[in-house]
Amino acid sequence: MNARLDRPLPAGLDGLLVTPGPDLVYFTGLRPPVTERLTMLVLPARVLVVPALEHPGELPGLEVVPWRDGEDPYAVVAALLEPGGRYAISDSAWAMHVIALQEAAPRTRWTSMTGSLPMLRAVKDAAEVELLAAAGAAADATYEQILSVRFAGRTEVQVAADLARLLREHGHEQVDFTIVAAGPNGADPHHDIGDRVIREGDMVVLDFGGLKDGYGSDTTRTVHVGAPTPYEQRVFDVVRAAQQAAFEAVRPGVAGQEIDRVARDIIEDAGFGEFFIHRTGHGIGLTTHEPPYLVRGEEQPLVPGMCFSIEPGIYLPGRFGVRIEDIVTVTGTGGRRLNTTDHALAVVS
Amino acid sequence: MNARLDRPLPAGLDGLLVTPGPDLVYFTGLRPPVTERLTMLVLPARVLVVPALEHPGELPGLEVVPWRDGEDPYAVVAALLEPGGRYAISDSAWAMHVIALQEAAPRTRWTSMTGSLPMLRAVKDAAEVELLAAAGAAADATYEQILSVRFAGRTEVQVAADLARLLREHGHEQVDFTIVAAGPNGADPHHDIGDRVIREGDMVVLDFGGLKDGYGSDTTRTVHVGAPTPYEQRVFDVVRAAQQAAFEAVRPGVAGQEIDRVARDIIEDAGFGEFFIHRTGHGIGLTTHEPPYLVRGEEQPLVPGMCFSIEPGIYLPGRFGVRIEDIVTVTGTGGRRLNTTDHALAVVS
Repeated sequence: MNARLDRPLPAGLDGLLVTPGPDLVYFTGLRPPVTERLTMLVLPARVLVVPALEHPGELPGLEVVPWRDGEDPYAVVAALLEPGGRYAISDSAWAMHVIALQEAAPRTRWTSMTGSLPMLRAVKDAAEVELLAAAGAAADATYEQILSVRFAGRTEVQVAADLARLLREHGHEQVDFTIVAAGPNGADPHHDIGDRVIREGDMVVLDFGGLKDGYGSDTTRTVHVGAPTPYEQRVFDVVRAAQQAAFEAVRPGVAGQEIDRVARDIIEDAGFGEFFIHRTGHGIGLTTHEPPYLVRGEEQPLVPGMCFSIEPGIYLPGRFGVRIEDIVTVTGTGGRRLNTTDHALAVVS
Repeated sequence: MNARLDRPLPAGLDGLLVTPGPDLVYFTGLRPPVTERLTMLVLPARVLVVPALEHPGELPGLEVVPWRDGEDPYAVVAALLEPGGRYAISDSAWAMHVIALQEAAPRTRWTSMTGSLPMLRAVKDAAEVELLAAAGAAADATYEQILSVRFAGRTEVQVAADLARLLREHGHEQVDFTIVAAGPNGADPHHDIGDRVIREGDMVVLDFGGLKDGYGSDTTRTVHVGAPTPYEQRVFDVVRAAQQAAFEAVRPGVAGQEIDRVARDIIEDAGFGEFFIHRTGHGIGLTTHEPPYLVRGEEQPLVPGMCFSIEPGIYLPGRFGVRIEDIVTVTGTGGRRLNTTDHALAVVS
């Protein structure tokens, strides 16, 4: 971990204020609870301010400073900051902590971690890529098994419970989402689950993932209950082609927005441009949503070790939706899929 | 819900900025995901800014303003704020959103919801108290059943898994914590769980809870594997007496810190003052940790409908810990326990 603590800061930044969540895991491996009691790693001071109740013990290379209920942890942090300094704080740090620190250190300037260091955790090392691959393999095993459960006559909630159970059986310690969006519900990319009974003839979007050994999985396949109509198959094939082309465009040096453009061009050329209503992908690692984002405006070039989703979709209001999503990592020469289940439209019963 | 939207603001506050979490549930009933995409209720403007992907549909009394990936939601919120105005933002709003809003509306002043409106959600209505009572009853049923599982020879992790399973079986949709702290581990109030094998002669602290129908449970009982020693029983009896006395001190008009003092006096008088290392309790409702806090310095008087834990403990480093915790609600004349399982030291096998 010490190499990470020694990382030089970009020009114009005087320090990092790291709170519980993926940034703190990245720097220290610690996973304390996220609460109203301040836990904060201050860099480059290498001081970890923690509630006495959650003292992690000695940590190599860090000074641990505990505080008790009734004491003021913000004064402790403020004393470590330079007047007029500019500090990046973890994106998900709580507002109550940010505001208290701004009051305790009124002359400091503030930026978010993603605003100033968007690629802090974006490039994974080989061990991290293998953890993501293992999480992907567990999600793939879940998909293979979900194909043999009953869909017709059961609710989205019931199939989602099957997905959650399978993810846990395949080693996930945390299930973050189990989207089962049948028929017209599939036209809402973020439809979660409901009491809709799945019917013969439904297109069903399955998007599920979570954390296995601390690293994320996130895969989507769209299945059909019984045989699809030619129109459904045509829409599906457009999404499949878009996903494939975007994958093939991955290589070091290409901008994130270019991957988005490749997928979007295919969907637009097929006449469905207005129905692809989200970005093409997002990074994944210690969280299931993080930089880099594959979105118009993202000019940051891809670098070997970056890991992200490629998930184009078409959403036809009142009818159905299709999305296909794999996690992909950038290699020295191209991309490697961390989800490898078949892309063909699976027919379920 | 509209009565809540109409609540007058305290003097010196120009509005509330409410993000996903308990505050947003309180005002709207909505439970959108907490992500890097801004969702924010602006009061008194009654505008809900949401990602287009998560459009909740029409909401009575609110104007819903969706934004798409690539658009700037902070400018939308900033346009609703008064220059120089003072705004309270949800405690757990993400730092990235706070900082972006401060940049988009540079002349505004900021405070946290708890800093300016600590008792916003502290007084529960009758329906909320009954939801908390139902969550408490589910936790109590879990405790009754855990007494008959095997402790000796199994790990803390295994017993914790039993607790989580039982909480879900009794209707919890979310399990927030399942502390099983055996022997010396019990001396760490926030010890979670580990691979320690529980042994004959261990004191074991069980502290568990989560959400049932959106409202929190949180109860602690300390059990013993086999017969306790006289010294263990004595320490236990001190904690039990402190918890009982603190409960009996609950009535409208008494300050939160007074409940803490009553419990602390008993533990100090018994010679264990230095080993009671945390506050006596915390509020509970849409979260398992919220105001009011029963802690020295809390001068806010108790009001009927407030709900909080009473959980004194004694923690003997290297030896064992004892804690007893019930959720209590303030009635017109005193307190009502929402956990009603026996306080006696249960012997497990």
